[in-house]
Parts: sequence; structure tokens; C-alpha cells
Amino acid sequence: MTFRAEVVVQLKPVVNDPQGIVVRESLLRLGFDGVRSARVGKHIALEIDAADEASARESVQRMCEQLLRNPVIEDYRVESLSAAAEPASAL
Amino acid sequence: MTFRAEVVVQLKPVVNDPQGIVVRESLLRLGFDGVRSARVGKHIALEIDAADEASARESVQRMCEQLLRNPVIEDYRVESLSAAAEPASAL
Repeated sequence: MTFRAEVVVQLKPVVNDPQGIVVRESLLRLGFDGVRSARVGKHIALEIDAADEASARESVQRMCEQLLRNPVIEDYRVESLSAAAEPASAL
Repeated sequence: MTFRAEVVVQLKPVVNDPQGIVVRESLLRLGFDGVRSARVGKHIALEIDAADEASARESVQRMCEQLLRNPVIEDYRVESLSAAAEPASAL
């Protein structure tokens, strides 16, 4: 079965985020006065084959641990995981 | 009121994603055989002041249109928007 997973990798709250600071300053300059903070992270959308949802989730978590996030400065969370309609490439 | 918003900015499906291709190849090399595709996008977490949820959402959408996404190659969606506990900086 094919599953679609979405992973969010964000800088830990204690880590300085220069990109987020620039985004906030740019928004303020554009007139969005209400912006208190902006933090920029990564969003990774995966399509994976797995036997069932539990093993898909376990597999995505191991991908995060091994490759997708830098454990020193980043946190991750698996935002969503669901069975996908068979992708076009497999038809 | 302060609202917390999360925005996902992704390359349009028709746009080539070299970073995603490298992620997929790296995952395959690490032994994650089931990876069909990986797409890398941006996740932007915002804290904004607004009168109510509707104006917060409208404001975030204008931020995306004006700054956060490149309309030629990217799509965006407002992933979540909710009232935040008053942030520490405002105490």
C-alpha cells in the first residue's frame, strides 16, 4: 500500500532563526504591523510503500531520525499520514 | 488577540524539485526502499495580532500572496490558525 506522509522539521525554539527574522521584518515593512514572530522550517511530503499504517509511520519516524532532521538544532513531527490513492506512476 | 498560524508553501506539482529528488535518493541509499517520492517545501509559523480569527486569516492570506510564496512556481495553504496563549514576550 502507498501512504502519503507530511513531516514538519522546525528549528528548536531556543535556536536563532535568521530566515524567520528577515521574513518578519519584510512583513512589517509591507505594512503587516501585527506580526510578532515568524519561524521558517521545512515541510517534507513523502509517498512511501508500506504494509500498513503502523509500519509506514515507524518508517517515516526513522527517516526523520536518520536523515531529515538535525537533532542538534531541529525538532520534527509527523503532521499527517494516510493511505494514498495509487499514484499515477504505478498505473 | 494573538493568533498562531501555520503556512505550508510547496512547489507546484509540475515544478521539478531537485531538493526532493536528493532526499529521495538519500533515503533509498539508507535502505528505505519504499520511498516513491519526496517533495520539500517551506513551513512558516507566524504569531500575529489581529482583532478576530477572520481578519487574522485574511491577513495571513495576504502575506502569502505578497511575500511568502512565489506565485509562478509555488502553492500555499494555511494549515492551521488558532488563538494563542499570550506569548511570553507580551507578559
